[in-house]
Amino acid sequence: MFDKIDHIGVAVAEIEPALELWRDRLELEVGHREISEEQGVEAVLLDLGSDHIELMAPLGPDTPVGKFLAKRGSGLHHVAYTVSDIEATLTALQQAGVRLIDKSPRAGLRESRVAFVHPKAVGGVLIEVVQPPEGGH
Amino acid sequence: MFDKIDHIGVAVAEIEPALELWRDRLELEVGHREISEEQGVEAVLLDLGSDHIELMAPLGPDTPVGKFLAKRGSGLHHVAYTVSDIEATLTALQQAGVRLIDKSPRAGLRESRVAFVHPKAVGGVLIEVVQPPEGGH
Repeated sequence: MFDKIDHIGVAVAEIEPALELWRDRLELEVGHREISEEQGVEAVLLDLGSDHIELMAPLGPDTPVGKFLAKRGSGLHHVAYTVSDIEATLTALQQAGVRLIDKSPRAGLRESRVAFVHPKAVGGVLIEVVQPPEGGH
Repeated sequence: MFDKIDHIGVAVAEIEPALELWRDRLELEVGHREISEEQGVEAVLLDLGSDHIELMAPLGPDTPVGKFLAKRGSGLHHVAYTVSDIEATLTALQQAGVRLIDKSPRAGLRESRVAFVHPKAVGGVLIEVVQPPEGGH
């Protein structure tokens, strides 16, 4: 169903102090930076070999990540899996009785298509499925 | 400093219902199962290519994972990075001013050596560093 871990999402209050930590002190490389109005975040992808850490700072308090920070504080937010056919994966998840947040894909970072599984279906774990754009990333 | 993501740790109340979800419905393969008195958990490693998800159920309420569940509920618990020289990594982290839980390695799953970074040093993210046994896993 899933191919590999694409990235781990980390919710942070602000990008710059998080970069001082993850880039400067933990020595990860910045691979990509993007403001996603769709997801309500400023996101930075840090590269670690072919793995990624996504730092996400909310664009406002009423965004999903803003609400997450208010409720739980900064920390691990989601795990994202790469899939080759996101529609087929969403169908298979629904057939397995797994509740989805997104029944159809929406725009992700770097022209990927993404969907979120409902954390109540996965014991509190927020899972994102990611289909990379043609040509991969 | 880190080579790659080794695994994502997920705290669960009980192993069997979590396996019904992750193994049976999300179709991940069980690669390893172990009771770690050292970490106070029953742990199952699920394989996803060369990536792993570690399900951890506490051996009792006074264990670290038992306390995590009581405070935050089930969900993402930690992210683990593979390192080739854990002593050198711990020294480098301390030199970078990153507070550690374990200043020297202790026993991890499958004869690995592991250490945890303090989540207060990493914006609420619990990081484990893992040096696989000779021959890898």
